[in-house]
Amino acid sequence: MNKPAKTEPNAITTRAQDYSQWYLDVIKKATLAEHSAVRGCMVIRPHGYAIWEKMQRELDDRFKATGHENAYFPLFIPLSLLAREEKHASGFAKECAVVTHHRLKSVNGEIVPDPESKLEEPLVVRPTSETIIWEQYKSWIQSYRDLPLLINQWANVVRWEMRTRLFLRTAEFLWQEGHTAHATEKEALEETWRMLEVYADFAENVMAVPVIKGRKTEGERFAGALETLSIEGMMQDGKALQMGTSHYLGQNFSKAADVKFQNREGQLEYVYATSWGVSTRLVGALIMTHSDDAGLVLPPKLAPVQVIVIPIFKSPEEQARTSEEAKKVAAELKALGVAVKVDDRDGIMPGAKYYEWEGKGVPLRIEVGPKDLEKGSLCIARRFVTEIKGESPEDQRRRRKAFLPRAEAIASIVPTLAAMQAELLEKARQARAARTRVFDKLEDYEKFFKDEGGGFAWVHWAGTAEQEEEMAKRFETSIRCLPFEDQVPPEAKGEGVCILTGKPSKQRVLMAKSY
Amino acid sequence: MNKPAKTEPNAITTRAQDYSQWYLDVIKKATLAEHSAVRGCMVIRPHGYAIWEKMQRELDDRFKATGHENAYFPLFIPLSLLAREEKHASGFAKECAVVTHHRLKSVNGEIVPDPESKLEEPLVVRPTSETIIWEQYKSWIQSYRDLPLLINQWANVVRWEMRTRLFLRTAEFLWQEGHTAHATEKEALEETWRMLEVYADFAENVMAVPVIKGRKTEGERFAGALETLSIEGMMQDGKALQMGTSHYLGQNFSKAADVKFQNREGQLEYVYATSWGVSTRLVGALIMTHSDDAGLVLPPKLAPVQVIVIPIFKSPEEQARTSEEAKKVAAELKALGVAVKVDDRDGIMPGAKYYEWEGKGVPLRIEVGPKDLEKGSLCIARRFVTEIKGESPEDQRRRRKAFLPRAEAIASIVPTLAAMQAELLEKARQARAARTRVFDKLEDYEKFFKDEGGGFAWVHWAGTAEQEEEMAKRFETSIRCLPFEDQVPPEAKGEGVCILTGKPSKQRVLMAKSY
Repeated sequence: MNKPAKTEPNAITTRAQDYSQWYLDVIKKATLAEHSAVRGCMVIRPHGYAIWEKMQRELDDRFKATGHENAYFPLFIPLSLLAREEKHASGFAKECAVVTHHRLKSVNGEIVPDPESKLEEPLVVRPTSETIIWEQYKSWIQSYRDLPLLINQWANVVRWEMRTRLFLRTAEFLWQEGHTAHATEKEALEETWRMLEVYADFAENVMAVPVIKGRKTEGERFAGALETLSIEGMMQDGKALQMGTSHYLGQNFSKAADVKFQNREGQLEYVYATSWGVSTRLVGALIMTHSDDAGLVLPPKLAPVQVIVIPIFKSPEEQARTSEEAKKVAAELKALGVAVKVDDRDGIMPGAKYYEWEGKGVPLRIEVGPKDLEKGSLCIARRFVTEIKGESPEDQRRRRKAFLPRAEAIASIVPTLAAMQAELLEKARQARAARTRVFDKLEDYEKFFKDEGGGFAWVHWAGTAEQEEEMAKRFETSIRCLPFEDQVPPEAKGEGVCILTGKPSKQRVLMAKSY
Repeated sequence: MNKPAKTEPNAITTRAQDYSQWYLDVIKKATLAEHSAVRGCMVIRPHGYAIWEKMQRELDDRFKATGHENAYFPLFIPLSLLAREEKHASGFAKECAVVTHHRLKSVNGEIVPDPESKLEEPLVVRPTSETIIWEQYKSWIQSYRDLPLLINQWANVVRWEMRTRLFLRTAEFLWQEGHTAHATEKEALEETWRMLEVYADFAENVMAVPVIKGRKTEGERFAGALETLSIEGMMQDGKALQMGTSHYLGQNFSKAADVKFQNREGQLEYVYATSWGVSTRLVGALIMTHSDDAGLVLPPKLAPVQVIVIPIFKSPEEQARTSEEAKKVAAELKALGVAVKVDDRDGIMPGAKYYEWEGKGVPLRIEVGPKDLEKGSLCIARRFVTEIKGESPEDQRRRRKAFLPRAEAIASIVPTLAAMQAELLEKARQARAARTRVFDKLEDYEKFFKDEGGGFAWVHWAGTAEQEEEMAKRFETSIRCLPFEDQVPPEAKGEGVCILTGKPSKQRVLMAKSY
C-alpha cells in the first residue's frame, strides 16, 4: 500500500527544472488529487472533483441537446460476454480486474476469500461497457422504429495499469461512455463525427484547449472499432494528449450480441453502432495546458470558484467592517451568476490566503481593506495576464492588480472573466503554433524531437505499421492522427513524399510524442 | 445468466391481485429498470435514471447548502484495510465481491484469469467506503483547524445478494455516502441528526413520502456504528421501507485508521465520525408509495417529464396545425420552468400514447386536437385526482380532464403541478394513518398482522434482542425505530408495559413488517 501524500501546500518545482514534478506539485498545491491505499487508484479531492463536476455538467448538457439520454449498466461483465468480440477481448485482456469470489470468511483469525464462494463464472470489472450494453440492447431493439438508440453512461471503469500518473493514467477512472445504435452505416458514421465535434467544441470553448481532429491509424484504433476519431491537444512540454475518442463500430458488436432489427423493407439486419468517451484525464489536460509555476490556472468556465473575496484587517473593528463589505460584494456578484466565495478565515495572513487561492487557480481575487472602504474602491487581482514581450515583471504585476471604484469594479467582473477565458485559448493557440513545424527531411525531424524539445510535426507518411514502430523506437513519436482536411494548416497542405520511405503521400499526418 | 426481460408495455397486474407482480409490472411498463446478464445486477433504463438524476440534484443541493463537498475515493478496498474495524468487517463479510486477479489469458482457446496475475492482497469491491476514506483522512487531518471535514461521495457499491428485487435489493446499486470528521462528540452527533433531517425533508417535500424518524435498535445498527438513525416510509402494502440512514460512528473508525488531531488545548485526540447515505432504493420507495393499477405515478418535483403535449390529427393538414400548436404550447410552458415534451410521433394512435405516458407517470397531459384549435382551448388531463368517497368512476374521469380556454390552461399548469405534489403527500399521509394502530394486547397485534394486512403498530417494548427475534419469527415484524419524541402520535404517547413481556416501558416503538 502506498502512503498517502502529505497535504501542506508546498513550493512548486518550475516547469524548466522538472516538468513531471511540476505537474505533481501543481496537483498537490491545488489539492486536486492524490494516490490512495490501493495501488494505481487515485483519490479525487473536493477541488479536483468540483472541476470534474463542472466538466460533467457542460458535457451532459451537450449530450442531451444532441438527443442522448443517460442510463446505467452493471459494473461487472461475465467473462464469456467479454470474450464474444474477439479483438475487443484481446485488446483489454491484459488490464482486467477479475472478481472470482463473493464472500469473505475468517480462517485462523485471518479474513480471506471464502473458497466455497468461488463464482461459477468470473466477472470482469468493466474496462468499457460495449459488451454488457449490447447484450441489453438485444431486448430493446426490434424494429427501425426503435432506432436510433442514443444512450450515455457516467461511470467508473477499471483498466489495470502498472505505471500510473494522477488523472492521466490510473487503474480506476471516471468517464462517460456513449453507446448508440443506428439503422444505417451512414447514420452511425454521422453520429461518430457529430460526437467528435461535441468534444472539440467542449475542449476549445470550455476548457480553452485547442485541438486537432482526425482519424487514428489502424494500430491505434479502439479494440473492435472500424474507425476511431480523436481530438489531440498539445501540453506545455510539447507532447500530445489524446483528449477524447469517438468510434464507429460497424456491426461488430451487434453481430457478437446478435442484435438485429427489422428495417423499413421488413428485412432483418444487424444494427450499426458507435461509442465515444472522455474521462477524468481531461482534468490532467486542463492542468498541463494552462497552469504556471505558481500553480493551477483555470479557465473561468471550469473554475469552481471564479472569484475569491478576501477581507483584510488588523483589528477586530476592521475585521467586522471589511468582512461585512466582502459579503456584500459576494452577494452582488452571486446575483450576476458568478461563482464567488468569501475567505474570512481568522488567524491566517492575507498573503497566505493569496498563495492558497492562487495555487487553486481561482481566476480573480478581490481584496477588501480598510482603505478600500474609505475610498469606495476595490482591488481586483487577476490570476494571470497575457504576457507582453519585453515587459518587466514589475510592470506585469502592476497590470495584474487594478484598484477600481466599487461599482465599476463589480461591473467589470463578468466581462473580465469572459476576457480571461478567451485569453487562455489564444495563449494555448500561440503556444501550440510556436511548437508546430512542417518537416520534409528526417534529419530536421530528428533534430526537432531530440534537441529542440519537440512538439507537433506535420509530415508526409506512407509507411507500414512496422515503420510506424520504427519511428516510435527512434524518436519516441507516433502518428497522433490522420487529420480532417480542414485541420491542416496552409503551409502543410498538398501532396508530397513520405518522410521515412520517400513513397508518394497525398496528405500530411500529425506526429508527436504523446502521453 | 438471466435472460433480459421483454420491453413491450404490458397490462399491469392489480395490487389486489398480486402486489409483488404489480411492482414489477409498473417498472416494466414505465421502462424504469430491468435485470441484466449479471446475476443480481440491474440496468437502470433512461426513464428510471432520469428520476434518479432529479433526486441527485435535489439531494446534492441540500448537501452543499449544509456545507458538504463532493469527492471520489477508490472502488477497491484492500482486504487488510477492511478487516481493521472488526465489527464492520464481519458485518459485510458475507456480501463482498472480491477481486483476486488483474489479467486474463487465453488457455486452449478459452479466456481465463491469468494465474500469474494473482494479486498479493485481494481487493474488495466497496460495500461502503468508511475504511478506505478514513485511511485517506489520516493525511488530511492534523489539527482542529482541519475540522469539521464534510465530504460526500456519489458512487456505485456492491453487496452480494442472492435474492434481489429491482431498486430495493440489488448486488450493485448507486448511492451517496457522506463521511464527516469532527472535533467533538457533540458536533458529530449534531451532524448525524442534521443529515437525517435533510433526508426527511427530501422524502416529504420532494418525494411526497411521509416518514417516521427515529433510532435503530442495537441489532439493526450499521456495522461499526454507535448510533444509527433512520427514516421509515410506509408502502402501499403496509410494509415499512427504510429510506435513509445516518450513523454516529464515534471514534471507531478514527481509531482503526489512527486518525488523531491536535485539539485547541494542544492535545492529541481521536476524531469523531459520522456517515450517512441514501440509494437508488428510493426509486423503489417512490414507485411503491404513489403508483396505481395504471402504472407509475410521479410527484411533479421528480418527474423528468412533467407535461406531455400530444397533437391529435386525422389528416396531414390537421397534423401540421396541431403539431405546430403543440410546439408553441410546449415553448410557453418551458419558459415557465416546466419540464415539457411533445409527442408528435407518427403512426401511433393517441390512445396508445396516452397509455404509454400514463404508465410512465407523467403528471399532466395536454391534448391538442383540431376542435381545440377552433375553440382556442386546450384539454388538460391529470394523471390522478384525489379520490372523493362514493364518487363514481365516470365522475372521477370527468374531474381528471378539463377543457380550458388556452391562456387559462397555460396559466393553470404550474399551480396544478404544485397542487398535485401536495395532494400526493396528503394521500400518502392518509394511507399511512389508515394503516397505523396503537396496540396494548398481543392478540390484537397478531390479528392486525396476520388477518388485517398489517401496517405500522405503535407498541410498548421492553424486551431483549432474543425477544425481538421471537417477534420476527411469530409475526414477521421488527422494531423499525425507537421514534424521536415528536414523531409519536398523541394517542400513542405516554408510559406503559411491554406488549410481549409486560415489563414497564417509557415510550412506544414503531413495529412493522419491512422490506
